[in-house]
Amino acid sequence: MKHLLSIDDLGRDGIEEMLSLAENFVEVTRRDIPKVPALRGKTVVSLFYEDSTRTRLSFETAAKRLSADTMSFTVASSSVKKGESLRDTVQTIEAMGVDAMVVRHSSAGAPHRVASWTDASVVNAGDGRHEHPTQALLDLLTLRTHRGPALDGLHVGIVGDVRHSRVAHSDVKAFHALGADITLVGPPTLMPESLEGWPARVVYDLDDVIGNLDVVYLLRIQLERQSEALFPSLREYTARYALTAARAKRLRPDALVMAPGPINRGVEIAAEVADGPASVITEQVANGVAVRMAVLWSLLGSGGSIV
Amino acid sequence: MKHLLSIDDLGRDGIEEMLSLAENFVEVTRRDIPKVPALRGKTVVSLFYEDSTRTRLSFETAAKRLSADTMSFTVASSSVKKGESLRDTVQTIEAMGVDAMVVRHSSAGAPHRVASWTDASVVNAGDGRHEHPTQALLDLLTLRTHRGPALDGLHVGIVGDVRHSRVAHSDVKAFHALGADITLVGPPTLMPESLEGWPARVVYDLDDVIGNLDVVYLLRIQLERQSEALFPSLREYTARYALTAARAKRLRPDALVMAPGPINRGVEIAAEVADGPASVITEQVANGVAVRMAVLWSLLGSGGSIV
Amino acid sequence: MKHLLSIDDLGRDGIEEMLSLAENFVEVTRRDIPKVPALRGKTVVSLFYEDSTRTRLSFETAAKRLSADTMSFTVASSSVKKGESLRDTVQTIEAMGVDAMVVRHSSAGAPHRVASWTDASVVNAGDGRHEHPTQALLDLLTLRTHRGPALDGLHVGIVGDVRHSRVAHSDVKAFHALGADITLVGPPTLMPESLEGWPARVVYDLDDVIGNLDVVYLLRIQLERQSEALFPSLREYTARYALTAARAKRLRPDALVMAPGPINRGVEIAAEVADGPASVITEQVANGVAVRMAVLWSLLGSGGSIV
Repeated sequence: MKHLLSIDDLGRDGIEEMLSLAENFVEVTRRDIPKVPALRGKTVVSLFYEDSTRTRLSFETAAKRLSADTMSFTVASSSVKKGESLRDTVQTIEAMGVDAMVVRHSSAGAPHRVASWTDASVVNAGDGRHEHPTQALLDLLTLRTHRGPALDGLHVGIVGDVRHSRVAHSDVKAFHALGADITLVGPPTLMPESLEGWPARVVYDLDDVIGNLDVVYLLRIQLERQSEALFPSLREYTARYALTAARAKRLRPDALVMAPGPINRGVEIAAEVADGPASVITEQVANGVAVRMAVLWSLLGSGGSIV
Repeated sequence: MKHLLSIDDLGRDGIEEMLSLAENFVEVTRRDIPKVPALRGKTVVSLFYEDSTRTRLSFETAAKRLSADTMSFTVASSSVKKGESLRDTVQTIEAMGVDAMVVRHSSAGAPHRVASWTDASVVNAGDGRHEHPTQALLDLLTLRTHRGPALDGLHVGIVGDVRHSRVAHSDVKAFHALGADITLVGPPTLMPESLEGWPARVVYDLDDVIGNLDVVYLLRIQLERQSEALFPSLREYTARYALTAARAKRLRPDALVMAPGPINRGVEIAAEVADGPASVITEQVANGVAVRMAVLWSLLGSGGSIV
Repeated sequence: MKHLLSIDDLGRDGIEEMLSLAENFVEVTRRDIPKVPALRGKTVVSLFYEDSTRTRLSFETAAKRLSADTMSFTVASSSVKKGESLRDTVQTIEAMGVDAMVVRHSSAGAPHRVASWTDASVVNAGDGRHEHPTQALLDLLTLRTHRGPALDGLHVGIVGDVRHSRVAHSDVKAFHALGADITLVGPPTLMPESLEGWPARVVYDLDDVIGNLDVVYLLRIQLERQSEALFPSLREYTARYALTAARAKRLRPDALVMAPGPINRGVEIAAEVADGPASVITEQVANGVAVRMAVLWSLLGSGGSIV
């Protein structure tokens, strides 16, 4: 595998191999010195055209724990402001001797274009409304920790603005590939316009399914979307779709609460639910580092041992 | 010791131990390769909610000289802008596997709250008007270099906007703990509203004490404060409280001139005094790295050898 | 050699030694682990008062490949905003224990002033309209790769806003030192006011010389300059001075096309020429890292082996 652009690049077998590898790296991150020399001398650059400190830090932490060098290219202080094209930026950075580019961009497909222009490996760290494959992998790793490797028949509800969410897009593909059963929950204006390509059913009322879910996955409400006609008022949204303490009581005893973060406490999730025993939100963050170690090592490790 | 939040966490014995340790690190920083492997595999993150390149670089240099990995989280390009709470940011960063957080925040007490939310060690790198304990330690280390370990009876004048200064607050505690005698100097509007908790006397005229001081410590005038009613005009301030060349001539021959930086030449201090033989301002900066090495090593070093 | 402030610091012999050294580093950068321990324990800080991500990343990559630690000081988030003088910033950074400062500044001569204030080595990474010596060295290294070490008699055309260009200034000196023949090409308003100190001839029409050049060096058009009276309209400029596909056909078969980047496709150079076989633009970027390794190693390596 040369790039990780979409969860489709992996397939069920590829996903499962990556998760097993990530489990080895979870063990590495728990060591007293949580570092291996696997990628010494390799350089990983973050090429972020959208701000996302948490995703960038997660990738950079992963790279450093593999002993790679890291560089950070953010648009704010770059030649992009001087009118340089994405292609020229990519070729310039490649020429400096970079082994992998971690790309975040507001346009769907940008990482694919980057991959067509460079010999370096490219990891999609989120492109427009399209995909965010390492998020899907870290979500699966978190599920596996609690439910074991077989997710067949597990019932996952993904709640919120599915239509505009790259996380939902990658997660639905990945959960489906491993055999989970998926229900999308939200107002009609935030559901996919067509379910073609979405192996999932839709319900418009969270209360209709809340008692039947093994996992409630709460998408982040982009508060800036409220001005758009698609979006109900925040009060109306919270009333019908937030995981309030009252709704959380109706969850199965072993149900898990997940969110990609950053969360809006009191909006899509009540503070006491985010901090409660069913929540695995901070585990997701921790697993993000291990998953990204696995991805970078798969792309750049050239078959050496993890150690 | 788990955290360094206030100079009170140390006490006289703790301060003296930390200074002795820092003296060892001064020796390390003078080596041809000024680096020790003591914190290899540890990760230190700077969590800066206020800009302060000099303090951030000083901590990051200290961490790198101990072979720790460093990460920098600044608010400008972060999820804080997306409405994430301080607590969620802290828990997210902790989940990535961080060993220490160096926190600068405009609110007094923010580092204490951070410490209550995380298992990582927390160092207060300045919180509102409250404290800046590593500044006090580096100031003491600088004094020790020139005056030896016993500061009993040393007369220190702290000049300027004491009321709003976290540096003054930490320094008064630390100098007092080691037996120094402290005089606060400035216009009444910039002196503490009450001297309770300030083991110091106040004078309103620098010329009254200038000849009796062993140390003149010049707080930085925050030029943006001038619009506030508390503040005299700059001209008036400089006339009465600046360390001009004329006033510097009245200093004792062995008196030391200190400032936390960045200095305003021609405002609180004349350029020729800042660059003159009594000034130890750049020594303070150098000692800052050694003190921060000592602090990080004390919090994270788990008893290993320095070397 | 203590500093690299101007190409004049080197002379012909010095330039040739530096290029030979850089060729060794080109070999290092092609290794599987493109890293040598030569500067372990040294600290290189980038002190950038103008944004230039590509130059900064190139220097930082070079420093990391020599195993130096790097720090980045950019004005946007620094004490410069609090009114600190350049001199105080330099002395503060030096006091933290820095071995080299890489300085980019909008004022000609700023790196020279920095060098007068510090014991650290200073590299000029571009100062106003004055010089950019490492750009000239990487341009020469690129020429040598294609033409061998002897550039005597090679005919180089430098096209564009020569008058305001530090790249042109350093390149003309460096190319001339190695025996090349230089023609400056552009409208009279963008040519030097006097040719004194410019060992070059001037022509005002690119078509007059295009067939006689061994190298066409296209300076970047600063689009923001258009509002100035000196500058022709973009349309007029492109019509007369851009390297269009049609003009590129008139080049000698072995002519090389160079540019310092970032390029404006469709302005000073047509996209198909930038990507065409005569273009060595991305090679220039790659050589930039090797040249900067050579410069940093010469200033800080204290005669050890490269390995």
